[in-house]
Amino acid sequence: MITPKPYVFKVRYYETDKMGIVHHSNYIRWMEEARLDYLEQLGQSFESLEADGVISPVVSVSCQYKVSCVFGDTVEIRVKLIEYTGIRYAFAYEIVRAGSGESAASGRSEHCVTNKDGRPVVIKRKFPEFDRLLRECVRE
Amino acid sequence: MITPKPYVFKVRYYETDKMGIVHHSNYIRWMEEARLDYLEQLGQSFESLEADGVISPVVSVSCQYKVSCVFGDTVEIRVKLIEYTGIRYAFAYEIVRAGSGESAASGRSEHCVTNKDGRPVVIKRKFPEFDRLLRECVRE
Amino acid sequence: MITPKPYVFKVRYYETDKMGIVHHSNYIRWMEEARLDYLEQLGQSFESLEADGVISPVVSVSCQYKVSCVFGDTVEIRVKLIEYTGIRYAFAYEIVRAGSGESAASGRSEHCVTNKDGRPVVIKRKFPEFDRLLRECVRE
Amino acid sequence: MITPKPYVFKVRYYETDKMGIVHHSNYIRWMEEARLDYLEQLGQSFESLEADGVISPVVSVSCQYKVSCVFGDTVEIRVKLIEYTGIRYAFAYEIVRAGSGESAASGRSEHCVTNKDGRPVVIKRKFPEFDRLLRECVRE
Repeated sequence: MITPKPYVFKVRYYETDKMGIVHHSNYIRWMEEARLDYLEQLGQSFESLEADGVISPVVSVSCQYKVSCVFGDTVEIRVKLIEYTGIRYAFAYEIVRAGSGESAASGRSEHCVTNKDGRPVVIKRKFPEFDRLLRECVRE
Repeated sequence: MITPKPYVFKVRYYETDKMGIVHHSNYIRWMEEARLDYLEQLGQSFESLEADGVISPVVSVSCQYKVSCVFGDTVEIRVKLIEYTGIRYAFAYEIVRAGSGESAASGRSEHCVTNKDGRPVVIKRKFPEFDRLLRECVRE
Repeated sequence: MITPKPYVFKVRYYETDKMGIVHHSNYIRWMEEARLDYLEQLGQSFESLEADGVISPVVSVSCQYKVSCVFGDTVEIRVKLIEYTGIRYAFAYEIVRAGSGESAASGRSEHCVTNKDGRPVVIKRKFPEFDRLLRECVRE
Repeated sequence: MITPKPYVFKVRYYETDKMGIVHHSNYIRWMEEARLDYLEQLGQSFESLEADGVISPVVSVSCQYKVSCVFGDTVEIRVKLIEYTGIRYAFAYEIVRAGSGESAASGRSEHCVTNKDGRPVVIKRKFPEFDRLLRECVRE
């Protein structure tokens, strides 16, 4: 299996707030960008999941902020699948300021898959390909 | 017909940027908040339109910025339907800092109604109630 | 001491995503809105803190999602100061769909106060008023 | 003078709304991303302007929407400086869905430079380098 590359991007101006730093809520959005990029690198696009009539809502999210990212920063996010139960999966994120190499924040998010009406889907049964992928990733 | 009240709210901290003022893109979002509030006050909720299988995309938008809104401001938005062709409708917005009463910005947005597949819907034919409402509003 | 009222608002259209529900990152922004409203009700505006040359960055944030908020919802957020160490303070949030009364999510955020150059400020020493307020709130 | 490359990026999931398309306000943010990238390619970073104690607020903005961008799209934005008066400068934007090559939207934004207290700065006098750059760009 390939090892996905970190997600790299430049801070956008509108992501800053009047403290002069990136607003903390944007790190949560960045984690999503990095997560979907990670899955896509592995061949699992979010669109194809949604095309099958399911959604994958966020069950929980957390972030610890260490050093503030600012406009002008290039940010690198390292994603790791850290848990998969057959129903839920969780990622860990390391958010790094690419210039200095210092860790700006670390985060975690947990997800499930549900029908449009909100009922949980057993990934293993309904999406055997995705199941295999998640099991492989979590093993590494 | 009732005259809708202006839309009033307080600037949210995350709407500011590192210039220390509200990021200009948020005025576009505020115009949407004010527009949907205006329509709801007139009895036309956006949800009910969407429940009928149509969407109402934005065709164009513009905003002139005069005075910057800042965190701490209470903002008042006066909405006016200024055009309705049976297919398209347009709103004008006056965005006022409630404290000083000064005009912060003025804007305009234009809208149509389409099926999910993007084809335009003749409002007059498909939504006679909404058509009547728009014709009444634009007359005043 | 007064007991601050919950923070109540209506979901904004632009807060939804293509799943048809509110994007999870917005709950983090809502927590900020509710927190600043809570402090303001107690007489401690964020602007006045910033006017003293300090900022109050977020140290950590977390959110557990239970039921999705959707456009059309009125949301009520109950804020509680749950920790104060003299240097750091933490809030807990209960995010409730006002219509059904069901809990949509619960969250937590932790904060410190720093100089513009990022050095932590001992709240007790530099802001005795704010310190007293925080100590009173956390006791209740 | 170099000709800046178009700004290319992938639509982020959180930029969609419940219509299933990118929320129209994000095109305004994209125009900013593209504009700052354009200026940076020409050697004029926004940070360096701000380091000189000035800000460059948006005076007006407009956007015409033709085809909706959706999640999964790669977007390409072509930026052109279309006006420069010595005090104000304006950009035009063509927002293209890279896959199909179709134009999704076209926009325009106008800017000035002011002191922190909001007074306009004559770019020609205060920033001769930036002035020369703008004059060169607009000539092409």
